[in-house]
Amino acid sequence: MKKRVEKLRESVLRENLRLASSGLVILTWGNVSGYDPEAGIVAIKPSGVDYREMKTEDIVLLDLQGNVLEGKLSPSSDTPTHLEIYRNFEGVHGIVHTHSQYAVSWGQSGRSIPAMGTTHADHFYGDIPCTRKLNPNEVQADYELNTGKVIIETFTGIDPLAMPAVVVNNHGPFAWGPSPAKAVDNAIALEAVAKMAYLTVRLGGEERIDHWLLDKHYSRKHGKDSYYGQKKK
Amino acid sequence: MKKRVEKLRESVLRENLRLASSGLVILTWGNVSGYDPEAGIVAIKPSGVDYREMKTEDIVLLDLQGNVLEGKLSPSSDTPTHLEIYRNFEGVHGIVHTHSQYAVSWGQSGRSIPAMGTTHADHFYGDIPCTRKLNPNEVQADYELNTGKVIIETFTGIDPLAMPAVVVNNHGPFAWGPSPAKAVDNAIALEAVAKMAYLTVRLGGEERIDHWLLDKHYSRKHGKDSYYGQKKK
Amino acid sequence: MKKRVEKLRESVLRENLRLASSGLVILTWGNVSGYDPEAGIVAIKPSGVDYREMKTEDIVLLDLQGNVLEGKLSPSSDTPTHLEIYRNFEGVHGIVHTHSQYAVSWGQSGRSIPAMGTTHADHFYGDIPCTRKLNPNEVQADYELNTGKVIIETFTGIDPLAMPAVVVNNHGPFAWGPSPAKAVDNAIALEAVAKMAYLTVRLGGEERIDHWLLDKHYSRKHGKDSYYGQKKK
Amino acid sequence: MKKRVEKLRESVLRENLRLASSGLVILTWGNVSGYDPEAGIVAIKPSGVDYREMKTEDIVLLDLQGNVLEGKLSPSSDTPTHLEIYRNFEGVHGIVHTHSQYAVSWGQSGRSIPAMGTTHADHFYGDIPCTRKLNPNEVQADYELNTGKVIIETFTGIDPLAMPAVVVNNHGPFAWGPSPAKAVDNAIALEAVAKMAYLTVRLGGEERIDHWLLDKHYSRKHGKDSYYGQKKK
Repeated sequence: MKKRVEKLRESVLRENLRLASSGLVILTWGNVSGYDPEAGIVAIKPSGVDYREMKTEDIVLLDLQGNVLEGKLSPSSDTPTHLEIYRNFEGVHGIVHTHSQYAVSWGQSGRSIPAMGTTHADHFYGDIPCTRKLNPNEVQADYELNTGKVIIETFTGIDPLAMPAVVVNNHGPFAWGPSPAKAVDNAIALEAVAKMAYLTVRLGGEERIDHWLLDKHYSRKHGKDSYYGQKKK
Repeated sequence: MKKRVEKLRESVLRENLRLASSGLVILTWGNVSGYDPEAGIVAIKPSGVDYREMKTEDIVLLDLQGNVLEGKLSPSSDTPTHLEIYRNFEGVHGIVHTHSQYAVSWGQSGRSIPAMGTTHADHFYGDIPCTRKLNPNEVQADYELNTGKVIIETFTGIDPLAMPAVVVNNHGPFAWGPSPAKAVDNAIALEAVAKMAYLTVRLGGEERIDHWLLDKHYSRKHGKDSYYGQKKK
Repeated sequence: MKKRVEKLRESVLRENLRLASSGLVILTWGNVSGYDPEAGIVAIKPSGVDYREMKTEDIVLLDLQGNVLEGKLSPSSDTPTHLEIYRNFEGVHGIVHTHSQYAVSWGQSGRSIPAMGTTHADHFYGDIPCTRKLNPNEVQADYELNTGKVIIETFTGIDPLAMPAVVVNNHGPFAWGPSPAKAVDNAIALEAVAKMAYLTVRLGGEERIDHWLLDKHYSRKHGKDSYYGQKKK
Repeated sequence: MKKRVEKLRESVLRENLRLASSGLVILTWGNVSGYDPEAGIVAIKPSGVDYREMKTEDIVLLDLQGNVLEGKLSPSSDTPTHLEIYRNFEGVHGIVHTHSQYAVSWGQSGRSIPAMGTTHADHFYGDIPCTRKLNPNEVQADYELNTGKVIIETFTGIDPLAMPAVVVNNHGPFAWGPSPAKAVDNAIALEAVAKMAYLTVRLGGEERIDHWLLDKHYSRKHGKDSYYGQKKK
């Protein structure tokens, strides 16, 4: 078990560093966590620590209720948001939060990111939803937990594994996946499609991708009939 | 013959890596292939493999009908599109597919990229065409082959060597050339002119380049009266 | 005392180099200064010197009235602006001036940068103000001093530690903080939020962040109830 | 004399490489030349050669009439434009041509780049002019020479040392200066101000910089009363 947890911690460090080198985050903004459901353990980036100085032992370990199990540093202030997502979205084992600029801009406009092409369809099955705004009560107490709750509310009737990202209104994006590495991939894809949707709208493009093309591209990469990538042995 | 094929494979690897370092592709999106018409062999990137780990032996060899001749990995899922282009466009010996962001945005808007200046004219003789959308039947069966067919259809009356790129509607660009290296050059030029056309349109520019200037710049670099670059010995 | 001053000089050099590598400045544009109130000494970048060749001893030392205390080179031509800020904004011990492109564009439009999301709120408590234009008299004599004065005038009723940046009309941004390092952080954050506000406005977003969310994010990072980052020991 | 010429050649190589690493050029687009008026010699980049492989001996030497004095490679196809500028603009000893994207976009819109702020004023004394279009005759014969002629025509009544750049209609920018290094500085500044003017216009900014502020910033850096940078010894 100890070895499993160490592996989780290392992957969370590695993905935080990959996120930092991807150009999606500046300063100490952004964080990656991972969840091992068998161990019941979440590993997350410490709060406000410089990416260049982060070490494996700085990654904080918690249980799903937020009790710190190991680590001398305070966990990311966004931890309650991550935990609420893990508690509600089965199969999600990695979460990324960034302030990547095009995705934030859709969130600041209060708009979902429209599915306009196959790049989008390869990762996200439909429009990437934007949450409603939080009211004063939700912000003043348990703000980060309520950010998680409004994400869960937004996903009523949406499969979080087919739509592995959300834009929080006036805030920014969260992306997730079956592992920390897949979550970072989705965060990178999210910013790319957010930029392309921005450019498309500015060029006067208004139509979403045809649903048959959306279906095709999504199923090409995901599910039992997928044929993208190498067959698992 | 073996040496020729090995050379093709190496150039396809090299150009896939150059494409990855050009900033045009993120994650594992994008692929480069090469075709040796004397050997009758196409070499193409394997599907979904990380660029940082790709080796010469990972490049898949196929015949023009898509039968795998050598290689343990599955070829790019876009292979049928590449093959359809090689079967129809004589003189094309390298093809590149990317999701580069400005070119995709023109495709997501369903618009051809207008020829607005000499940068464009240096590489593309006129507007870079955008295909029609595929219908449900074309998408559901043989999707990648039909993507190739709609490209060929779009080029009715257009010389593919004078117009070495296309934007597939709601999808993204394909570029090509007489070698994998020239195809990557054209993919890089395509994204640059797609960005400049975007900016020009946003500034209110609406006029295309004068046809005499288009002719001059294209013929300066291409054809029997070209005088750009060094004379071949 | 000598050691304190040497430390100030080194931090000013280090932050000038960090600014140069941040992508915010090109050529020799931009400068960072630091102020040690106990020593009564300001350290600032020399004028027009290449970042790649700058050494600790090139950093010029002055008193608050602008008398050079040490250094063979001329101080930045913007020095009188820096000094006017230090003389008036208590607690400000680091100042950065750049021509970062999105912030400049708001200044060239004569518009304050609207607070549209939590990224903004994490660093700036409200809209980042744009100064009025300078009149001919203010420009012709003591131009750099008057640039400082118009910044002070703009901050009537605004706490410079809660709003650590300004955009000078038709010119560009100044950012500051309790240290040169924090000032550079704020300059980096400023350009990011200037870009996101630009994109948001282009997407049709017109609303500012709710005041309860602005309050929450600012207080999460600043003041006695802050809980972002690691507790100081 | 031989030593002077060798120095010119080295500076032209160095500045071509700096241009390549500045992000302003892609592929083999763009070129830098230098002129030594005492030697009567122009040194220029060879045509279509990869920047990564360029060596000092590849830089071609010509006289002002375009006769090759030394060098095995063909000079840049834009050489007649460079020579026409050197023959007409006294004091210009370095010229740069790029297809940098924001500057090109102004040229493709047929618009001069408006002077909107102090960044612009630090380098360019007023709007950066856009030439008229060339007519069919001017394009079909002696195209590159006529590109030079239309630049000279555009500068009737404009001091080329106070306005060291132009945007050629439907083509792209040329920048120059008293040395190849200063010409590259101006090409870099040109792209930055072209981008900022684009963003300003998109934000609804319509006013040019006040003429007293333009005068101040220009004279702060140039002419007998300049006080930016270090005093020459």
